[in-house]
Amino acid sequence: MAEIRKDPLSDRYIIIAPQRLQRPDEYSRTPGRRAAGNCPFCAGHEDETPPATAVYPSSAAADSPSRTWQVRVVPNKYPAVEMSAVGDNSPGNTSPEFTRATGIHEVIIESSDHWESITDIRPEEAELVFLAYRDCLQRASNEPHLRYGIPFKNTGPLAGASLSHSHSQFIALPHVPRGAQREIEGAERYYREHDECFFCQLVRQELPHGPRLVAASPHFVAVAPFASCFAFETWILPRVHEANYAQTQPLQLQELSQFVCDVLRGLEKRLDRPDYNYWLHSCPFDTRSYDHYHWHIEIIPRLATLAGFEWGTGSFINPVLPEDAARSLRETVTLAGRAPKP
Amino acid sequence: MAEIRKDPLSDRYIIIAPQRLQRPDEYSRTPGRRAAGNCPFCAGHEDETPPATAVYPSSAAADSPSRTWQVRVVPNKYPAVEMSAVGDNSPGNTSPEFTRATGIHEVIIESSDHWESITDIRPEEAELVFLAYRDCLQRASNEPHLRYGIPFKNTGPLAGASLSHSHSQFIALPHVPRGAQREIEGAERYYREHDECFFCQLVRQELPHGPRLVAASPHFVAVAPFASCFAFETWILPRVHEANYAQTQPLQLQELSQFVCDVLRGLEKRLDRPDYNYWLHSCPFDTRSYDHYHWHIEIIPRLATLAGFEWGTGSFINPVLPEDAARSLRETVTLAGRAPKP
Repeated sequence: MAEIRKDPLSDRYIIIAPQRLQRPDEYSRTPGRRAAGNCPFCAGHEDETPPATAVYPSSAAADSPSRTWQVRVVPNKYPAVEMSAVGDNSPGNTSPEFTRATGIHEVIIESSDHWESITDIRPEEAELVFLAYRDCLQRASNEPHLRYGIPFKNTGPLAGASLSHSHSQFIALPHVPRGAQREIEGAERYYREHDECFFCQLVRQELPHGPRLVAASPHFVAVAPFASCFAFETWILPRVHEANYAQTQPLQLQELSQFVCDVLRGLEKRLDRPDYNYWLHSCPFDTRSYDHYHWHIEIIPRLATLAGFEWGTGSFINPVLPEDAARSLRETVTLAGRAPKP
Repeated sequence: MAEIRKDPLSDRYIIIAPQRLQRPDEYSRTPGRRAAGNCPFCAGHEDETPPATAVYPSSAAADSPSRTWQVRVVPNKYPAVEMSAVGDNSPGNTSPEFTRATGIHEVIIESSDHWESITDIRPEEAELVFLAYRDCLQRASNEPHLRYGIPFKNTGPLAGASLSHSHSQFIALPHVPRGAQREIEGAERYYREHDECFFCQLVRQELPHGPRLVAASPHFVAVAPFASCFAFETWILPRVHEANYAQTQPLQLQELSQFVCDVLRGLEKRLDRPDYNYWLHSCPFDTRSYDHYHWHIEIIPRLATLAGFEWGTGSFINPVLPEDAARSLRETVTLAGRAPKP
């Protein structure tokens, strides 16, 4: 059973999860990766994962009537946190710096077919992935012990993926993690000083032709942040203020899934299909008003290895000007059925 | 010329350094790495680096009289920050979030021979490396524009090294970077609440037989931190309170260099010569009293790839209990000329 320890200096929570050592890692055996027929995430291998938390079935429009599902959400077989830890926190837990690792750790399998990037799966499946993120957040927010949830994606071994079948993950925690908390506090400070949401200001500055605009759809924009930590870092956010991703409407999820895949395709074209991570920052599970916060997706291609300076200082050295990255991506991002310019 | 941008949400400084893109990367061509005779850090290739800032010559005791130096400090050929940026900060710099990237970025070449780990070089050279860290910090602290310096080491491609010849780097900055600042603030808070330096308390708790003690020498201890972010993370610190590494005495530097190499050898034996980073946290360049801070070296073997969860939350999932890591390392760390137990 994992535990959560709090670092007294940084206030950071560390999850100590020995069971994660048993994870398979097909990438460690590359080349000669697991054949598609051998993949635990492919259709026909449902018994190799824990029973599904949610199944998004094939619609009648699906091109293969024998396929029974398009997107499946299953508990992570090697969880960092577990709901079964909830009742386990009284005996032996005398220190405030130590708790059993309570939470939810799920895997979102994005297609019943063996594709390696979300940009390869069918648009209908991609839409269900973004619906699944919403449903994961909604379910977790109903758990009285949990305070925060984050959907995220690791694509490729350099991004920390251990299986190649396109998938996302979702983790929900009994606390708001320090990095997310700091972003929210920073946004609150900005709101107090400027009387405007930082992210709304960002959208306003970059539309219609800002130097760091990557692309825009009717309801969403993609930008290179002014102080990008990583080369070609790209954020995607709704044009109109919305703090809670779980309240996004289905029609907008359809547009969002298409827009995210279009931006990722542009990154893949520009950078020759790099490994990448993205995560979705939404507000915590409470009933506060979040006029100062705005949900968004942060995408980072994994082009360089973080080294001692970055770890030792919490600072970053980025070799690509965000304005140059945005200009370059404007040339390769093509919106489905639309010209690349907003 | 690089620039420093401040992220308004996190208060984090990002160095945007396009010239870093021109760096060679011999690891990207592995296998078939640069032959030793072709390495810009080897003796005889001194003209392939910028002129040295400091040279530590061979003593008469050196086994090869033709070797003229043992350790050389040279400006980084692809600097993230430069002192020449100092005068460049008035025109065009109207935003407080933006400054030219002023600072020092040096490389400490640890041997005139082509060794790939500091554990391979001669003890005399290792001692000079730790002396060079001190001299770098002392020189930088005399620059009126600079406030903080950090010696660090990247060993192997997974740790972000681009050249295999054993070397460290030193970066000094016009600000205290956010990560270092937070550690110092956390230590100050701890001191206020407990009336004792956090690090002194750590030494007191772990000596002589604490569960997270890795090794101890007369003046130094190595421990696995309670809330280790990484598997086998190891800190080395002086037993007696000292905030400023630049004030360490030469005799202690000799002991320190031996102790660090002994601990690294234990890690290399236990983990089959992993790539690793370490960095040295010392106090900022000011005249405050740092009763609450204590210099230390943090070592992290690069065993796993950080993924979307870690980047998106600032939290870490560590699969190895620090107590287990310490127990395991106590078996493989052998102190030079001494039994492994303190």
